[in-house]
Amino acid sequence: MLEPVGVLPQAAERLDTRRELWPDEVRVRVERLNLDAASFRQLEQAHHGDGAAVRAQVLDIVRSRGKMQNPVTGSGGMLIGTVEEVGRRSRLGVVAGDRVTTLVSLTLTPLVIEDGLRDWDGRSEQVPCTGYAILFGRSIAAKIPEDLPAELSLAVMDVCGAAALTARVVSEYVARGKPPIVGVIGGAGKSGSLALAAARDAGAASTIGIVPIQHEADVLGAAGIADVVTLADARDPVGLFDAVEAAGGPCDVTVVCVDVPGCEGGAILSTADRGTVVFFSMATSFPAAALGAEGLAADVTMLIGNGYVPGHADYAVGLLRSYAGVRSMFERRLAAAPTASADPGARQQGPQPGKMAP
Amino acid sequence: MLEPVGVLPQAAERLDTRRELWPDEVRVRVERLNLDAASFRQLEQAHHGDGAAVRAQVLDIVRSRGKMQNPVTGSGGMLIGTVEEVGRRSRLGVVAGDRVTTLVSLTLTPLVIEDGLRDWDGRSEQVPCTGYAILFGRSIAAKIPEDLPAELSLAVMDVCGAAALTARVVSEYVARGKPPIVGVIGGAGKSGSLALAAARDAGAASTIGIVPIQHEADVLGAAGIADVVTLADARDPVGLFDAVEAAGGPCDVTVVCVDVPGCEGGAILSTADRGTVVFFSMATSFPAAALGAEGLAADVTMLIGNGYVPGHADYAVGLLRSYAGVRSMFERRLAAAPTASADPGARQQGPQPGKMAP
Repeated sequence: MLEPVGVLPQAAERLDTRRELWPDEVRVRVERLNLDAASFRQLEQAHHGDGAAVRAQVLDIVRSRGKMQNPVTGSGGMLIGTVEEVGRRSRLGVVAGDRVTTLVSLTLTPLVIEDGLRDWDGRSEQVPCTGYAILFGRSIAAKIPEDLPAELSLAVMDVCGAAALTARVVSEYVARGKPPIVGVIGGAGKSGSLALAAARDAGAASTIGIVPIQHEADVLGAAGIADVVTLADARDPVGLFDAVEAAGGPCDVTVVCVDVPGCEGGAILSTADRGTVVFFSMATSFPAAALGAEGLAADVTMLIGNGYVPGHADYAVGLLRSYAGVRSMFERRLAAAPTASADPGARQQGPQPGKMAP
Repeated sequence: MLEPVGVLPQAAERLDTRRELWPDEVRVRVERLNLDAASFRQLEQAHHGDGAAVRAQVLDIVRSRGKMQNPVTGSGGMLIGTVEEVGRRSRLGVVAGDRVTTLVSLTLTPLVIEDGLRDWDGRSEQVPCTGYAILFGRSIAAKIPEDLPAELSLAVMDVCGAAALTARVVSEYVARGKPPIVGVIGGAGKSGSLALAAARDAGAASTIGIVPIQHEADVLGAAGIADVVTLADARDPVGLFDAVEAAGGPCDVTVVCVDVPGCEGGAILSTADRGTVVFFSMATSFPAAALGAEGLAADVTMLIGNGYVPGHADYAVGLLRSYAGVRSMFERRLAAAPTASADPGARQQGPQPGKMAP
């Protein structure tokens, strides 16, 4: 299936793109690729904005590697299409005719383009495309809800792991009879607002949304999805600690959703003894977290935010339906950046903190 | 206490070294510093092996920063000394007269050298030293057991967090009535052998020690601390998966103690659904773990190995006393590298996999 043999798909040079399915695979007829923003930017710059040259390179990458993975950025994107055939042992839970989006990166997805991308001018991350893609047994795909704008669904699904894992962690505290105080650093962002709603949904004793600037505090306050909203720079451990204390902390569960380096110490310091820190930010430094907790003699459980939890897409879409405040925050963000694209393999790498629509 | 105000001690330029104690502090009369190996090597190279120049620079660093933190490597080391005075609200659990070692890095520890390091030739990481150090409320110090060679105790304490956290994770499974299968990647190393003993001690259903070369397999097999020993290169996910399967896996708990990059995918793939991966290796890449699990649709809990768990030093020393196989592995290692020094802030960065004494 892969070259070189023995590596996992993301690291593989080239994927096998045979049309025929193994029993656990699914073939999708592709209608659109969403290139990862970092990848598209790199291609655009490399070709000085020459759309035809960008298109030619994307075609060449997909033809030679069997997948869309920018060799410079390493990233891919996601795709939308319709299920064409389902292997008899597939566990993906989709049937032929379902309109789906992939929740794993294009860097893991065998892809064949059949139309030479003739409907794409090479000037946008949104790539109309005819062709097919193969999802494996361990891939993840989600049905696109019919009652919601596709763009809204995709934006939610892009960060759905944060909601599901936050809910799971909070539920474990609740099951032990100790509903937790939950703090979300970067509570006004996409993953942050979903995490706040998930914490409340799962039975948190209270929720604290932590944001760096007044405007975000205003927006988050108006959305009504956090019990308390507080201002702090998460890179300043003592300042963060003080703000969280004043807001009702320390937190039993701290969720880090803000994508700036250097937030590990503050998150640890703001978390109660035997509490849990969930790091979703891709800017998290493993050594900074490990040595930071040790240096502070902090007995906290630190989780690497796994973007996959079974049922995560449905759960996050459900939160969007139930919490008007979450939906308003996503819609506000989409209105500000209507063409923003996503790569599940680059979840929180996109938006910077404070980059909320005015 | 710190400059600049608001940062945590490790990031501080300069620590306050006043002799007088705050109520939660402890003052230690220092007898020896163990410089971190990476730090000493850098100093030695920078001064072309001129011991007097190395000594002069260490004195200058400690005088100007109030702590021993190599400005190039960022690392410090640990110290041995005797408790001189204990603040009335200290929670460190030591009394005046106790011989102790610090379990937090020297980069966090206010230090004053009083003898100009006149007994040190600048040619070894072991630095005889007269002076004092201040331990804070959140520092960690451990009494050096009188019945064990000090070097052996220090080697164990250097990696004691791995034992205590492994035991905690295993105990949680046992408490739910599901004693886990535990795999330790790098089972023949210091933290790895302690983790294997801790897993058995905490009630694991079975333990699998995974090592990269036959010689380590022989040594680990002879020590008798793993139920099964298997050979695999942890950087090859499919090879590791196959080896763990053949050894009785997948594992409910996988502990990563081997300090090479690129082990994340294999560890995730070798772990059962709803299992737990504990990453102790400082070579762990946060994005590789997060995106790897997502890409594999692997519903596993991933922990950042926090080096601090209350009681960890006593627990690890207890394992050393109870498991002759653990002690033999540590002694073998010490015999091969008698001057190896350590920095709690660089735990697993020292020994490379496969670097076991012949």
